[in-house]
Amino acid sequence: MNAAIALRPQLKVRRVNLDTGRENVAVMSRRSKALRPEVFRGFSRVEVRRNAKVMLATLLITDDDSLVGPDDLGLAEPAFRRFAESPGALVTVTPAAAPDSLDAVRAKIQGHTLSAPEIGAIIEDLAHYRYSDMEIAAFLISSASFMTSSELLALTRAMAEAGTQLKWNKSIVVDKHCVGGIPGNRTSMIVVPIVAAHGLTIPKTSSRAITSPAGTADTMEVLARVDLGIEEMKEVVAACHGCLVWGGHVNLSPADDILISVERPLSIDTREQMVASIMSKKLAAGSTHLLIDLPVGPAAKLKNATEAMRLRKLFEFVGDHFGISVEVITTDGRQPIGNGIGPVLEALDVMAVLSNDRKAPPDLREKSLRLAAHLLEYDPELRGGTGYARARELLDNGAALKQMQKIIDAQGPSICRTDLGTLTADVAAPGDGVVEAIDCLRLNRLARTAGAPIDKGAGINIFKKIGDRVEKGEPLYRIYAFDRPEYDLALAAAKTDPGYLINGQRSLSDETAT
Amino acid sequence: MNAAIALRPQLKVRRVNLDTGRENVAVMSRRSKALRPEVFRGFSRVEVRRNAKVMLATLLITDDDSLVGPDDLGLAEPAFRRFAESPGALVTVTPAAAPDSLDAVRAKIQGHTLSAPEIGAIIEDLAHYRYSDMEIAAFLISSASFMTSSELLALTRAMAEAGTQLKWNKSIVVDKHCVGGIPGNRTSMIVVPIVAAHGLTIPKTSSRAITSPAGTADTMEVLARVDLGIEEMKEVVAACHGCLVWGGHVNLSPADDILISVERPLSIDTREQMVASIMSKKLAAGSTHLLIDLPVGPAAKLKNATEAMRLRKLFEFVGDHFGISVEVITTDGRQPIGNGIGPVLEALDVMAVLSNDRKAPPDLREKSLRLAAHLLEYDPELRGGTGYARARELLDNGAALKQMQKIIDAQGPSICRTDLGTLTADVAAPGDGVVEAIDCLRLNRLARTAGAPIDKGAGINIFKKIGDRVEKGEPLYRIYAFDRPEYDLALAAAKTDPGYLINGQRSLSDETAT
Repeated sequence: MNAAIALRPQLKVRRVNLDTGRENVAVMSRRSKALRPEVFRGFSRVEVRRNAKVMLATLLITDDDSLVGPDDLGLAEPAFRRFAESPGALVTVTPAAAPDSLDAVRAKIQGHTLSAPEIGAIIEDLAHYRYSDMEIAAFLISSASFMTSSELLALTRAMAEAGTQLKWNKSIVVDKHCVGGIPGNRTSMIVVPIVAAHGLTIPKTSSRAITSPAGTADTMEVLARVDLGIEEMKEVVAACHGCLVWGGHVNLSPADDILISVERPLSIDTREQMVASIMSKKLAAGSTHLLIDLPVGPAAKLKNATEAMRLRKLFEFVGDHFGISVEVITTDGRQPIGNGIGPVLEALDVMAVLSNDRKAPPDLREKSLRLAAHLLEYDPELRGGTGYARARELLDNGAALKQMQKIIDAQGPSICRTDLGTLTADVAAPGDGVVEAIDCLRLNRLARTAGAPIDKGAGINIFKKIGDRVEKGEPLYRIYAFDRPEYDLALAAAKTDPGYLINGQRSLSDETAT
Repeated sequence: MNAAIALRPQLKVRRVNLDTGRENVAVMSRRSKALRPEVFRGFSRVEVRRNAKVMLATLLITDDDSLVGPDDLGLAEPAFRRFAESPGALVTVTPAAAPDSLDAVRAKIQGHTLSAPEIGAIIEDLAHYRYSDMEIAAFLISSASFMTSSELLALTRAMAEAGTQLKWNKSIVVDKHCVGGIPGNRTSMIVVPIVAAHGLTIPKTSSRAITSPAGTADTMEVLARVDLGIEEMKEVVAACHGCLVWGGHVNLSPADDILISVERPLSIDTREQMVASIMSKKLAAGSTHLLIDLPVGPAAKLKNATEAMRLRKLFEFVGDHFGISVEVITTDGRQPIGNGIGPVLEALDVMAVLSNDRKAPPDLREKSLRLAAHLLEYDPELRGGTGYARARELLDNGAALKQMQKIIDAQGPSICRTDLGTLTADVAAPGDGVVEAIDCLRLNRLARTAGAPIDKGAGINIFKKIGDRVEKGEPLYRIYAFDRPEYDLALAAAKTDPGYLINGQRSLSDETAT
């Protein structure tokens, strides 16, 4: 094998200005002396090697010397960055053997159960970008049909160990997680300051929106910097007991991020994969006590109590195994929590609750207090049953707001544009009646169409909730946008289906006033 | 939805000199007005649209204006060719929705059985390049765990109907197929002229090597042109009763080619998928009578008679359903058939058999006669049991050779270099003894290392078969190559493991004479 490599012609590394997302891509000239057409085709997988360093990549072939000459090997972003060699460094290119751990994936496809070392090897290869998209899909689907409890535990542990593992030297490190899907619902930004004001450690990492109009990281970014490194995050937590940072910079369970990048487009989302994904991140984050929020509703991820209970048992099982104290609660997932949908609007809701503004959305306040109450009761010093009162006290007396300000100052100022969209339109009720249902998926989509989360000030602010009486022509919600085409699109979509059910009818209103 | 499209900024199509194999790839500037960073990332899937024409592609993003400017959309090969619009044509780009039929794939992952229309929709989308690699993998793996007989039939029919369907206006159209894996074994090139000389119609399409040192199309190309279009193929068959062309230009069951391109790297190869693949091609080719050769041996695809029988039943079941008369025979797959491994060497074997050369490999002659005998007996005019005698007659009296010459003339002259490799080395027996086994996989790999099938004259010519007595230092086979590094590699690999078992020992010989 070494003889084989020594004989291969060497190519000079060159950076190619192509952004290929997560995928490693290499570009070779069709006239390259290293190109063997029988083994290299466009989009075939290759191994790029310099001494002991090996990287797998997808190959593109060009006739254009200005892009890549016959003696060069072009590396697109992020391959160039990951390979970390200077332009001109000599490399060899060989057809990529599939990663060894793919044998275990094939065994799983054939119905075998995998051992912990086999799962560990798969996750190790995944985290080092050795799996192609189709190989990742193979692993996901082979484990979607069944996963034993030992496999689930092994997968969770392997994912947690594949990236950064945080240690806090505290006997209690609390965390909360919501499985998502509900617009608004920025409870973390209220729960963290309450819990931190009490003095418990709550180092919260959050995600950015992938398919929704805002993630907690996007909303927090309206108020403060969120792309902190590990050391910066530790300093903030040391100073404030808590933080609200983006998980993307902290490299917790990177294999999970890679799996998610294939799960989303394929919409494969099994309970086991969800639990392994969440618990691996919490395990890596060093959490000891974890509260999980499962919203239940017709447009939520969990449609009924039975689904929620099955998921709860799985979380408890994995938590027990790894010594994380897990509490799972189901919440009302029938409609948005708070009024704003989109980063700036949600940040306004959060600050209104923390400031005890009388216009603050009561549902967001109430849900946040309830979650904070559960977390506060992890404090052995706190008398049983007094968590809610303590949470309300810290919110009402301004301690939570003060703590939030401290966290914001510690994380650093926001560098985002934080004004609200200048193009606005109200979507009005088509007749008198009572709001019977609100379609969360629809509102999420409208807010995204209006420009959220990229335009932080774009989105939707809702005025009516389930049970509210409305009169014909009364506004249901307001659309905010910056970009004229997006504004037009969102408005047209809202006219077609505004996502409100009033008196048994989806309101199809033409009466929108700008 | 139409309103949405009308509002999107339009981009000008531009060809980008990148060969991306089978995959459609589009390139956009990071400064493009059509780029919405929240929905478009490197390697995300997009829809390129011009009026009613839609193409799915994988997106790359660049900052290099010389590659693609902000107003352009670059299309790499083959996307530019498939989209078939002039440079400058205006298109819109939107995030690609997953193909609708992916819902059926998700149902299959969850254990559902698919209906014929669902499978039809999947294959339709596949054949139109609407599936990404990961989506193809999802379909393959979801159906690898189980496939009902109705699903197998629906898959076969859908694949056959997705491409060209040949009609011959003959009551009998015969064909043969070998499931492969055995080096040499170029029986088709002897069977076709015998059967055609008899007057039966045998329009044979063959594949090129993907992982082997030669496919029938590669070997026939040494003697004649093989990349005929459909009309040309029909003319040859009309003139000669048969042909030996490459299937790649004829577009039979294109969905199968796409599935294979993902099956190979993942090494997923279920019986059902193999049967659907082969039978869809034969159904599309208009065959009425089909002989299937299943070689059985330790390094063959089928390891024993039980595996072969299960596969036979599956072929018979599908054949019966579609009214194709299928006959399945098992053959000796323990060692190479013929002496040559590599296109030129195999073509020499074939011509030696057809010319009744006394040095022609007897096993290749015998196996070809046996297969031809089965095919000839599909002729109702031929008296039962006389197929073998008739085949031998047509071979011995020179009719088959004459027919082969006619087919070669009709297909047109070869344009390949057809001399034998100039670098040769004999690999010698390490001691006296009897050849007990030959490792087919090993010899295939050595022949590929030496340069086959790209260098048509590279490969291996074997001198000894199982049961042959050899003396120490006597040559087992000769390696042929053109390229010095490949020659050195092949020789080094042969020294490490020549693939022969003599007296219970893998011969590890240093005594190679060049």
